[in-house]
Amino acid sequence: MNIDEKKAAQLLLQAGHVRVISHASPDGDTLGCASALLRGLSQKGKAISFACSDPVPEKFSYLFNGLTFSQGEPDFVCAVDIADKQLFGKVTAPWAEKTDLCIDHHGTNTGYAAHTLLDSRAAAACEVIDRVLRAMDVTITPDIAGCLFTGITTDTGCFRYGNVTPRTHEIAARLMEQGAPAADINRRMFETKTRARLEIERRALASMEFFCEGRCAVMTILQKDMRETGATEDDLDGLPALPRQIEGVLAGVCVKEKPDGTAKVSLRTNDPLDAAALCGRFGGGGHKAAAGCAFHAASGEEAAALARREMVQAVTETLEALS
Amino acid sequence: MNIDEKKAAQLLLQAGHVRVISHASPDGDTLGCASALLRGLSQKGKAISFACSDPVPEKFSYLFNGLTFSQGEPDFVCAVDIADKQLFGKVTAPWAEKTDLCIDHHGTNTGYAAHTLLDSRAAAACEVIDRVLRAMDVTITPDIAGCLFTGITTDTGCFRYGNVTPRTHEIAARLMEQGAPAADINRRMFETKTRARLEIERRALASMEFFCEGRCAVMTILQKDMRETGATEDDLDGLPALPRQIEGVLAGVCVKEKPDGTAKVSLRTNDPLDAAALCGRFGGGGHKAAAGCAFHAASGEEAAALARREMVQAVTETLEALS
Repeated sequence: MNIDEKKAAQLLLQAGHVRVISHASPDGDTLGCASALLRGLSQKGKAISFACSDPVPEKFSYLFNGLTFSQGEPDFVCAVDIADKQLFGKVTAPWAEKTDLCIDHHGTNTGYAAHTLLDSRAAAACEVIDRVLRAMDVTITPDIAGCLFTGITTDTGCFRYGNVTPRTHEIAARLMEQGAPAADINRRMFETKTRARLEIERRALASMEFFCEGRCAVMTILQKDMRETGATEDDLDGLPALPRQIEGVLAGVCVKEKPDGTAKVSLRTNDPLDAAALCGRFGGGGHKAAAGCAFHAASGEEAAALARREMVQAVTETLEALS
Repeated sequence: MNIDEKKAAQLLLQAGHVRVISHASPDGDTLGCASALLRGLSQKGKAISFACSDPVPEKFSYLFNGLTFSQGEPDFVCAVDIADKQLFGKVTAPWAEKTDLCIDHHGTNTGYAAHTLLDSRAAAACEVIDRVLRAMDVTITPDIAGCLFTGITTDTGCFRYGNVTPRTHEIAARLMEQGAPAADINRRMFETKTRARLEIERRALASMEFFCEGRCAVMTILQKDMRETGATEDDLDGLPALPRQIEGVLAGVCVKEKPDGTAKVSLRTNDPLDAAALCGRFGGGGHKAAAGCAFHAASGEEAAALARREMVQAVTETLEALS
């Protein structure tokens, strides 16, 4: 059942112990939602607990500073920024069937929860949580403002993407007035590169090759690069987007050798290329502008070389067919 | 004489032909200011002209679309986002002595103009222009809103930097409501790289060296790199920000060899280092977190080497004094 923020606030205020759940592979929005809501519930005297199928990445740990979680079973379960049961992940999957309230901003939300508060025009689910907290008459402390700002800035690429509305900026202005340390959060989210990230980025850029008269760019990241730079998966964040950012590139390919000896391809395309169709040829899929697939060979490096060849070939054929 | 926006509006409305001047090596803020102000003056029936010592980079050319400039001499000269006579550059240097009004946001403004409208808390000079246009009773068209948004988003690194205030977000919200194509502008400003840019970025990253136990990072861009990659000044935009982004770096130095055989330093700092004070030692200046200075030697490469040595030495001494 679709409800509004007043009803959502009412449901939450009637509960005794609320468990808030973030989606697997948690990002700034789902964690910003959870931490802000948990702080608001705590302020209102509720027992609180939190669950997520994956650990909270170190860069987001400040969101949960100072929160005290209750033991025992909750009498109310609230999923935040989770569009679909599948996205709970393994550990929290049992709660997907017992979700009392889902607060979300994905137009694709499947309505799996008993009650759903959905605003698909919101740039971040944190925009919706902000409304719920105010409907609950929670005082927006600097901590809460910081949690909400984190979700909004991360889900909009720091106010860069097309999902930003005037309302997004208005909320950001208010959260800053309420004490959100915006510059600190942005620096932490967007401007801090580990030395390992710098080193892997240097190598990734150095690996970039161009095909099809500059319309296809291919970047390769090998396990050797990961080992030698000490980079982790977190350090690769955003790298697959780089090849398509080059002027004239219609197909930006990022080939990554995985530790299991396969090679994973992330493909980003511009019109008229269809990333999902191109990756579909190799058993993968995704969206029109971003898709993925995988290649297998005797070794990871061979799989990466195969992936490069096959992807360049597929892009070449598609571009020829279009011309 | 320091004046407020009402007085600035009055002065501009009394003029017949206003020449607006942007600083040399123009960026999004000085050009956003100029184009927005020119559009507002044109709307008010003024003759307008524009001057800048360097050409308008291609990526900013849309700002001036549809503007018609008058021949002949102006009876009023307005400098925008120019803190100091030195920053006019060669071509417009003569106007530095005859500036009737300067509209700026640099705390270091030298007060060289007959009248100065300065708000050093504004994240971008475009925030100040916005106030002047409203004091002039100009209708903020989508074109004007786009020009102002361009200045604000470029001078704040897309709302990322510490200079952003709640007011910055409030203005952005209003400009979007007034028709600024925010997502398009952000994509154009931040998400498109030329091939030459990619090549110079590869080299710049490869040049990065670390000093002071990782607290000082130095990037060097030589004329040789520019020649071999075909990069222009435009392609260097944002590169000076990279060294400070590395975890643990308090002083990010970018040394650039200029075609005239000097070396220009861009310094970005984090607390407790003061970029303006550090560059001040070498006759430069700027803000607390971002400043610049120049070095001279027998050749450009020697000047660059000197700049590296002197900056590392200055940072080392300052860090030692602080510890």
